[in-house]
Amino acid sequence: MLWFICYKQAVDAEVIAIGTELLLGFVVNSDTAYLSRVLAGLGINCYRQVTVGDNPERLGWAIRSGLSRADLVITCGGLGPTVDDITLETVGRATGKPLQLHPEILRKIKDRFRRLHISMPKANSRQAYLPEGAIPFMNDLGTAPGFLLKLTSDKQPATSDKFLVALPGPPHELIPMVEKHLIPRLRRFTGKVMIQSRTLKATGVTESEVDKEVRDLLSLKGSVTLGIYAHPGQVDLRITAKAASPAAGRKLIRQIEKKIRKRLGNLLYGTDEETLEEVVGKDLKKKRITLSVAESITGGLIGHRITEVPGSSDFFLGGVISYSNRLKQSALDVPEGLLKKYGAVSPQVAKAMSRGVRRFARSNLGLGLTGIAGPTGGSKKKPVGLVYIALSSPAGTSVYRHQFSGDRTTIKLKASQAALNMLRQYCLDT
Amino acid sequence: MLWFICYKQAVDAEVIAIGTELLLGFVVNSDTAYLSRVLAGLGINCYRQVTVGDNPERLGWAIRSGLSRADLVITCGGLGPTVDDITLETVGRATGKPLQLHPEILRKIKDRFRRLHISMPKANSRQAYLPEGAIPFMNDLGTAPGFLLKLTSDKQPATSDKFLVALPGPPHELIPMVEKHLIPRLRRFTGKVMIQSRTLKATGVTESEVDKEVRDLLSLKGSVTLGIYAHPGQVDLRITAKAASPAAGRKLIRQIEKKIRKRLGNLLYGTDEETLEEVVGKDLKKKRITLSVAESITGGLIGHRITEVPGSSDFFLGGVISYSNRLKQSALDVPEGLLKKYGAVSPQVAKAMSRGVRRFARSNLGLGLTGIAGPTGGSKKKPVGLVYIALSSPAGTSVYRHQFSGDRTTIKLKASQAALNMLRQYCLDT
Repeated sequence: MLWFICYKQAVDAEVIAIGTELLLGFVVNSDTAYLSRVLAGLGINCYRQVTVGDNPERLGWAIRSGLSRADLVITCGGLGPTVDDITLETVGRATGKPLQLHPEILRKIKDRFRRLHISMPKANSRQAYLPEGAIPFMNDLGTAPGFLLKLTSDKQPATSDKFLVALPGPPHELIPMVEKHLIPRLRRFTGKVMIQSRTLKATGVTESEVDKEVRDLLSLKGSVTLGIYAHPGQVDLRITAKAASPAAGRKLIRQIEKKIRKRLGNLLYGTDEETLEEVVGKDLKKKRITLSVAESITGGLIGHRITEVPGSSDFFLGGVISYSNRLKQSALDVPEGLLKKYGAVSPQVAKAMSRGVRRFARSNLGLGLTGIAGPTGGSKKKPVGLVYIALSSPAGTSVYRHQFSGDRTTIKLKASQAALNMLRQYCLDT
Repeated sequence: MLWFICYKQAVDAEVIAIGTELLLGFVVNSDTAYLSRVLAGLGINCYRQVTVGDNPERLGWAIRSGLSRADLVITCGGLGPTVDDITLETVGRATGKPLQLHPEILRKIKDRFRRLHISMPKANSRQAYLPEGAIPFMNDLGTAPGFLLKLTSDKQPATSDKFLVALPGPPHELIPMVEKHLIPRLRRFTGKVMIQSRTLKATGVTESEVDKEVRDLLSLKGSVTLGIYAHPGQVDLRITAKAASPAAGRKLIRQIEKKIRKRLGNLLYGTDEETLEEVVGKDLKKKRITLSVAESITGGLIGHRITEVPGSSDFFLGGVISYSNRLKQSALDVPEGLLKKYGAVSPQVAKAMSRGVRRFARSNLGLGLTGIAGPTGGSKKKPVGLVYIALSSPAGTSVYRHQFSGDRTTIKLKASQAALNMLRQYCLDT
């Protein structure tokens, strides 16, 4: 029953998250962020997000004030079987719709417990009562159904219908329900403006260097805008376009993207959800180049990141986590004299590690990393954050010196990012 | 000027997050979660969290309606130098306090740019104007100062004073400002009820097994409650207590904790922010046991996790990422016949890997992991998620078979968690 229709130019929505856990800050509100992205993608304006606890009075206020302003109010949470779960009763009271038993929901909840060989606790029968007129959204991953409620106004013209959607709180129940039940209905409910975005990802460059290149675009106003976001070892540029159709939005994005690509060139490694390890993996696989790693400062992080990508065994042979000097010598053939003369954190040892692991694994490329992750172990000459990264290839061995800032985790992450970028550059150059 | 005083039993607060980025769902609202934890820790009730965009009308509404209900309203975001940053003007208008120049703030902003060898952009001078009567919070990590504004009511008794606090949005600016300027003032502002919590962390056990043991405690109501939260390879139990003093709260928590510890025993590995790798590292260090790892399915994740903890080089010697069969043979001396007869994913190969890496690194303990991370590569006999974990010690070698569910990342994470738990069990038993 897809009776949502596109009846006016702009649709305004509000998201209400319900849960004392959220008010206490124990849980970061990812449901609201997810729903906001869904709404933006459909061109629905979300002007307010509100969070309240498991409290009927304050939830009632949030629903009533939301419906007084917005066309669509979405609640998430509070649909469980316990007395803490107050969404059903509160929606019923706030909208003047008494709760009614849906026998088919009760049957499905009972079936669910039967399959688990448990008899249904009495409390769960509460979940089969929905406000009068509600269209249930069945929950494939839990007992709590969601629902959609159309609220027809007596006083105003029919175009002022309001809609209330209630969803369960756990993301693994909410997300499939939104995709299966809510989005298909909202597609027909959306107005004329669609919001789209595309993220271009740069590495091997600082935020201020990127900022300098695109400053004029960062102050764009209107139908297309650009934002800049820095992460450890990475700078994201997000282009956001508002347009009447997906095609028009894509065109606006393409125009800006072209300008950015012209200015940043190979500093950009990917778009949207692409990770650096995915891009590097794809490059190595395509060029049939095998890789091994000798990780000291990163302790296995580079191997871990590379093997997060399915199919990485096609080019990644493995390597050595040479945390101790003894392993640097025995496995990687780093000469004891080199360690004594220059110290473990030196360009000489990084080079020897990269050559050693390449021999050890019989791979085309060998990466070697050595550095000081901190918080202790630094000195004036070799401060915390100093990292040498060497890449050995059939053409020879190169080594770079980096001085990273941040805590231990950040320094390890930045070092892994710089190492992966060195592999990317190698693939670009060969 | 710490003129906050404890003038009534309960203090109610609201948090307003400002930013179109948040409404579009591009950014998860971590500021609000952080501020809520701070408020809860001080015994201040936070009954509502609201998010609005960079829009003066809607921010004005949020501030006015927040102040009509709560004693303390905290805004975060919108203090930057651009025209998008509307918090200063909007707070000024909503509270009837005109903006006034603070010459010492202007001087500090200019100094900041001077140190960076840049002349101050004109726009930044806007940040030196605060609402009349505001007490500035200087920003050590950015240009935007925060502030505190006391709003004295003419009509009501003095105990009905309201407070508005404005903070910058970037967490690395907001958090130090809260710790340095806001918390000391709020300490004297707090009411009689303090909220405290303590998390007990279990591993090597499923959520439903833990649930069965503590079901009676999960339904506690009133001054002390228990919540259960499942993560890959880990189950958290969070005890939350409301009490008139920290000591009374701690006593309530201790009573429940004692009961839980009696029932779950060694399944509990740590509390609050402790990680499994920290606990295992501490155990190994204390017992002077050295460790090496042979990682196949986890690709370096165990080494990465162990080396996240400062000082891990005291017991962690490193290891081999034996992603290819050739490395399993050449570095770990896994016999070719074993690989052919049983396959790389077998208890026999896991055992040989753990023995091999122990010899290779000359460590007291050797871990060996082999398995199928998916999404491809599984078969009926050896499905995706099958993992063998072996631990070799002077006393012999043991191996466990696991069948994990989830995607590639989750399976790797669960395998690393089970391996670290095997080390923990070993330390408990020796």
